[in-house]
Amino acid sequence: MTTPRAVKKVVLAYSGGLDTSIILKWLQETYGCEVVTFTADLGQGEELGPARAKALAAGVKPENIFIDDLRDEFVREYVFPMFRANALYEGVYLLGTSIARPLIAKRQIEIANLVGADAVCHGATGKGNDQVRFEVSYYALKPDVTVIAPWREWSFQGRPDLIAYARKHGIEIATGKEQEAPFSIDANLLHTSSEGLVLEDPNEPVPDLVAKRADRRTITPEEAPDQPTFITVGFERGDAVSIDGQAYGPAALLGELNRIGAANGVGGLDLVENRFVGMKSRGYYETPGGTILWHAHRAIESITLDRGAMHLKDELMPRYAALIYNGMWFTPERKMLQAAIDASQDDVTGEVRLKIYKGGVYVQGRSSPYSLYNKELISFDAAGGYNQKDAEGFIKLNALRLRIAAWRDQRLGKND
Amino acid sequence: MTTPRAVKKVVLAYSGGLDTSIILKWLQETYGCEVVTFTADLGQGEELGPARAKALAAGVKPENIFIDDLRDEFVREYVFPMFRANALYEGVYLLGTSIARPLIAKRQIEIANLVGADAVCHGATGKGNDQVRFEVSYYALKPDVTVIAPWREWSFQGRPDLIAYARKHGIEIATGKEQEAPFSIDANLLHTSSEGLVLEDPNEPVPDLVAKRADRRTITPEEAPDQPTFITVGFERGDAVSIDGQAYGPAALLGELNRIGAANGVGGLDLVENRFVGMKSRGYYETPGGTILWHAHRAIESITLDRGAMHLKDELMPRYAALIYNGMWFTPERKMLQAAIDASQDDVTGEVRLKIYKGGVYVQGRSSPYSLYNKELISFDAAGGYNQKDAEGFIKLNALRLRIAAWRDQRLGKND
Amino acid sequence: MTTPRAVKKVVLAYSGGLDTSIILKWLQETYGCEVVTFTADLGQGEELGPARAKALAAGVKPENIFIDDLRDEFVREYVFPMFRANALYEGVYLLGTSIARPLIAKRQIEIANLVGADAVCHGATGKGNDQVRFEVSYYALKPDVTVIAPWREWSFQGRPDLIAYARKHGIEIATGKEQEAPFSIDANLLHTSSEGLVLEDPNEPVPDLVAKRADRRTITPEEAPDQPTFITVGFERGDAVSIDGQAYGPAALLGELNRIGAANGVGGLDLVENRFVGMKSRGYYETPGGTILWHAHRAIESITLDRGAMHLKDELMPRYAALIYNGMWFTPERKMLQAAIDASQDDVTGEVRLKIYKGGVYVQGRSSPYSLYNKELISFDAAGGYNQKDAEGFIKLNALRLRIAAWRDQRLGKND
Amino acid sequence: MTTPRAVKKVVLAYSGGLDTSIILKWLQETYGCEVVTFTADLGQGEELGPARAKALAAGVKPENIFIDDLRDEFVREYVFPMFRANALYEGVYLLGTSIARPLIAKRQIEIANLVGADAVCHGATGKGNDQVRFEVSYYALKPDVTVIAPWREWSFQGRPDLIAYARKHGIEIATGKEQEAPFSIDANLLHTSSEGLVLEDPNEPVPDLVAKRADRRTITPEEAPDQPTFITVGFERGDAVSIDGQAYGPAALLGELNRIGAANGVGGLDLVENRFVGMKSRGYYETPGGTILWHAHRAIESITLDRGAMHLKDELMPRYAALIYNGMWFTPERKMLQAAIDASQDDVTGEVRLKIYKGGVYVQGRSSPYSLYNKELISFDAAGGYNQKDAEGFIKLNALRLRIAAWRDQRLGKND
Repeated sequence: MTTPRAVKKVVLAYSGGLDTSIILKWLQETYGCEVVTFTADLGQGEELGPARAKALAAGVKPENIFIDDLRDEFVREYVFPMFRANALYEGVYLLGTSIARPLIAKRQIEIANLVGADAVCHGATGKGNDQVRFEVSYYALKPDVTVIAPWREWSFQGRPDLIAYARKHGIEIATGKEQEAPFSIDANLLHTSSEGLVLEDPNEPVPDLVAKRADRRTITPEEAPDQPTFITVGFERGDAVSIDGQAYGPAALLGELNRIGAANGVGGLDLVENRFVGMKSRGYYETPGGTILWHAHRAIESITLDRGAMHLKDELMPRYAALIYNGMWFTPERKMLQAAIDASQDDVTGEVRLKIYKGGVYVQGRSSPYSLYNKELISFDAAGGYNQKDAEGFIKLNALRLRIAAWRDQRLGKND
Repeated sequence: MTTPRAVKKVVLAYSGGLDTSIILKWLQETYGCEVVTFTADLGQGEELGPARAKALAAGVKPENIFIDDLRDEFVREYVFPMFRANALYEGVYLLGTSIARPLIAKRQIEIANLVGADAVCHGATGKGNDQVRFEVSYYALKPDVTVIAPWREWSFQGRPDLIAYARKHGIEIATGKEQEAPFSIDANLLHTSSEGLVLEDPNEPVPDLVAKRADRRTITPEEAPDQPTFITVGFERGDAVSIDGQAYGPAALLGELNRIGAANGVGGLDLVENRFVGMKSRGYYETPGGTILWHAHRAIESITLDRGAMHLKDELMPRYAALIYNGMWFTPERKMLQAAIDASQDDVTGEVRLKIYKGGVYVQGRSSPYSLYNKELISFDAAGGYNQKDAEGFIKLNALRLRIAAWRDQRLGKND
Repeated sequence: MTTPRAVKKVVLAYSGGLDTSIILKWLQETYGCEVVTFTADLGQGEELGPARAKALAAGVKPENIFIDDLRDEFVREYVFPMFRANALYEGVYLLGTSIARPLIAKRQIEIANLVGADAVCHGATGKGNDQVRFEVSYYALKPDVTVIAPWREWSFQGRPDLIAYARKHGIEIATGKEQEAPFSIDANLLHTSSEGLVLEDPNEPVPDLVAKRADRRTITPEEAPDQPTFITVGFERGDAVSIDGQAYGPAALLGELNRIGAANGVGGLDLVENRFVGMKSRGYYETPGGTILWHAHRAIESITLDRGAMHLKDELMPRYAALIYNGMWFTPERKMLQAAIDASQDDVTGEVRLKIYKGGVYVQGRSSPYSLYNKELISFDAAGGYNQKDAEGFIKLNALRLRIAAWRDQRLGKND
Repeated sequence: MTTPRAVKKVVLAYSGGLDTSIILKWLQETYGCEVVTFTADLGQGEELGPARAKALAAGVKPENIFIDDLRDEFVREYVFPMFRANALYEGVYLLGTSIARPLIAKRQIEIANLVGADAVCHGATGKGNDQVRFEVSYYALKPDVTVIAPWREWSFQGRPDLIAYARKHGIEIATGKEQEAPFSIDANLLHTSSEGLVLEDPNEPVPDLVAKRADRRTITPEEAPDQPTFITVGFERGDAVSIDGQAYGPAALLGELNRIGAANGVGGLDLVENRFVGMKSRGYYETPGGTILWHAHRAIESITLDRGAMHLKDELMPRYAALIYNGMWFTPERKMLQAAIDASQDDVTGEVRLKIYKGGVYVQGRSSPYSLYNKELISFDAAGGYNQKDAEGFIKLNALRLRIAAWRDQRLGKND
């Protein structure tokens, strides 16, 4: 165990659950310091009320308890900017866990500055990406902050030690929490991820224990209704603003897309990903609303975005996604990429009609006052400003460098 | 009309259909030259037999009629290398039409060299990408060849002129071909594309006339069976080699994936894309087997590919896809990217289990003797070579540059 | 010769020299239209006064003569943004000609809109990049404009035809202009380029005829003084603002750097480049001030730019440079890249000390209030916030994926 | 101090100098293990003979002393492949130190496998890049190896402790080595780097103490002769093979270029760079031969490389350079990039003529049997296969997307 550093006041990212309750107590014991709890509503679907009572019961002063509803900020300032980029990590993952971490870290640091805390603490384990995402963000925003990562520091060996510690300190242990959970869950308004134990064999399908658990985010495609659902998503400057003509705020909109997606079996993803810390891990991710949003955004871009802008975005996207995955939200290079992406979204305004059916999202139509789709140019028999003769020159000059090389090869008797 | 250049012998990409039959006659009349017909089986699903009879009837000499089965070469040398890259154009298009063009062009040039022809001719229109793909490939392989593009050259104005010309020259006009087709189709073993007229309003869904036509490639998700189909796809060094343990040659394997995908409503795609010649166009593409293959290849890579290799591939992919879309297969830069991609596939060997259900393809498991997934490292309580303490140093040095900037900003009293 | 289209009024990019004087007359004769002349001072070093007299003599109405000093706009809005990117085309070329074209085109279109002209005309040849740069910019800014490119249109065959035409129309022919020039020159405040004839053998050095001509931009290194010159260049937010502590406006600053560079033999470049139209060409470029500015900007970035920002900039730069080279200044993708680049320059403020000596530019020092260089961290024996122990974890996790692969290879008995 | 791990036999990268002599003794004392010394000649210019005697004197068994001349392998397998990429880190650094590390590490691991050692040890400090480069390579090649990094482990505080330890153990202390060196040096055949103390203020020029030290690699430009030197460098498939028509092996060729460059003041570079571990550092690097080689390779590529290949190379280069800088030579992504780069070099054969003068390298000519430079195409009045009329279509289709956007903006009354 690391020797505890001198800490006066620490801001703990606190859910009120067993693990962070143990951490709270452990901080008080180990560091002998004042603990400030910070509980955020990012749409994870848990009641936040009990967190206050539990913190009070653990001896946290009322003025040291912070409970914030960050749902709109989360979607407006983090989720939407990311979706402008059509970000997918390793071709498939919508970054649902990754994108929540910088906001939590940012608010934690704001609270630390407010209450004069010199340390922050999170409950992420020592093998995952979340520790990196939290801590890199902490350091970027408050470079001298002391970071406490209990899972890397304490001497507990496995679940039984933790439970014993909780018992010893009178921490409430909910039914079923005594055993190691068969899988761990992280959730926010964008998605739910499940990892661990029963999911660790990548050659076994996601068990019903996970895919059909009571609090799942989406149903399986097989359970979805036999009739498709049709919706229209409206966009303004790259962000979704309405469903079926009704305006929604950011969080409400994502919530409604979640409801529609979940009802139709959309957004379950079984994947193996490469962690920043170097190993591969397997997870089951549920992102119903985000999956719909991704397809809708691509579709509205397909008629409003210039080709050069789209191709540049596509080439920048994997790096942008990796930056978010790696916790690099508050870096100059992420901001540079965001500036480029945002500069492309001025005309990404219009409506996309979608069919949602048994896990699938199918584009049925797109329209925009800013559309670059030009029916006159494309119609097989119409003129409309396009002269077919131009194609010859276009082709010949595009091919010129290849002809020059071929002439050379002929001259040299080369065969490729 | 362009003044005809002096041409002695021309190799025509000839399907035997109405359009290329008109072109054949037009070539004979306009250029007064010997015409060599080349008909390729790329798995488009048409009988090739009649092409010979029609060519003979049109006065083509028997030794000038070439009919080749290129299906295995197509899949082995073009489709598979492209799938090693997980290529998607503009995020969604599997490049089914694009990838067939360089092979047709290459074979056409080989025949031209064989028979001593000085010209080649294709039936692509003057507004599309295919003219570019054909002609850039022609020039790259035979830089002095004369390229004849009838649709850019002749003086016919619309369908009635063509039909009149066909009548005048006794060219057989199949029932229903007198009118402008309500949409045009291109097909090969990888996919079928539909474009034009009834598809030209991007705000209208694909009509049943297209989506449910008799010779469609895939059914709609709604029509698919209520029971999922489970398959296992085997890979060796990046290429699919077996289904459910049974080995297949390249074309047979893709054919079998097409059959499975089509039966389950997989692979229909309604999109608006950016053409190389500068306008947007809308199409409906059916790629049942290719869609399955894309997911399977991603899944086997997810356990066998190093993170650095995967991320580099992901960043190179959009450019690689655009090169193929733009007809740049025979360019040095496509070959360079292929060399990089191929260098990553040595260990992409193993099996992927898939559930195919109502248009969706869901990974159920992946296994490989070359797997980099390491259960010991990931298990929450096991040690296995990973020391959680290392994470602290990893994070701190990754954050160091951001801390330095934050210290500077503090010193300067800057707020971002 | 192309059939002349109906044109009412054309804005001609007019230098007053022989070639554009012939074009002026040819426009009047061929198109029978009103000609508006536009003469810009971009620092090419020619007197603009005579242009007015010549235009009047050629029958251009006084209100149709535009003479603009664009030097500050050129440097502020085009040169400086480009230097923020450290742009080099093909590793060596500072894009001196390329960057002037969009400004000329933009102003030409502004004048066309002002005077109600329906056409624009430039004097660039049909083989070069400049025709593309001019015309792509015209079309981007005024999509229905008629573009007249005399060198691609008229029927003159070579120099004698042009001279005869000039004689016939009483156009003044300066001494020495009757013959084909042994090389052609383009100049602006950023650079001078020489191309053609005597430079066409890339295996022969630049002849003195070019390198030592009377109006050259820079001397040769051998001719430069034996004593170095020392200067300090000040930057604010990425742009140079002062020399040796004295503030300069954009054009004046570049002019002063030109003077210093030229006096010390800086900035001569003999290169072979790849044109956008497909062939290679050879040129001799002189960019004395720009060469100094490039080194100075790199140096101030070296202490003020974060690593992630710098590396991203370096990776984006070749594409950004190619866009400018290809005339794509007014494209969405160039603007996106500019947004990214500009977002990195907030703290690129400070001073760079340089030694200029016999063609070389050597950094002697850099300082900035925004410096990220941290002497305490780097000093071999000081602590200063860096814990050497962190390096172990950093290295181990960076190596983890490679170890996993190596363990696998060991297990399989593989040797790479 | 870290608790010593159990080690039986360790291979030490050993120069015979004071620092590695102390390390040798410290290893014997601390780990109580058998020490194997490995001394490599990479062209650093030191005599290797004394290393054997010193190792023997320190108690190393004769069979445990390895002294290898790796100069040709170094240039052939590391330097030349890197120069094929025109690699520059952060726009200026030729990666002279970085590129030597993977070879040393590889040979160290080979020896470890040969002698059955379970550990390796290097003398790099805990703040620099070299520790990363060594250790990442070790782990990639022998994942279970124990890595000993004395500078991160031992408890010596500064120079006096080290000297005292040396005295106590009878280690020879050369004159002037008792004090902290005013700067530290690393050298190999490609370059010499100087860092530390007297170089730590980035606003002060490199002092003569460094730039004019007795064993410097290159002289200053001011000291160089007043007459230029002219040489011709021959290339085959991307690698330099001759100077002035005389064939050289890899190491001999680089040595000769070093001689020529050094005599003319080429290759001194004062820079501030971003270290992988997160801070900026300042150095003075001398790379005379490499600087000449970089210019020569660019020049031969300028006539033999296709545009698409060159631009792709230029875009990949910064990442390739950063991989080498960061010690990632033995990674899949570096090998992928190398495969792409190498695939471009087949025709990079020919000769480049250079003028070397007072620190500058100036291309005077380039020729190649594989040249793609086509004088006929470029000559202003010649036809040669290029039809100027083609440019119109080329431009129009390249501009089409921009016109479509402009038409839309007109329709909407938008101003950008």
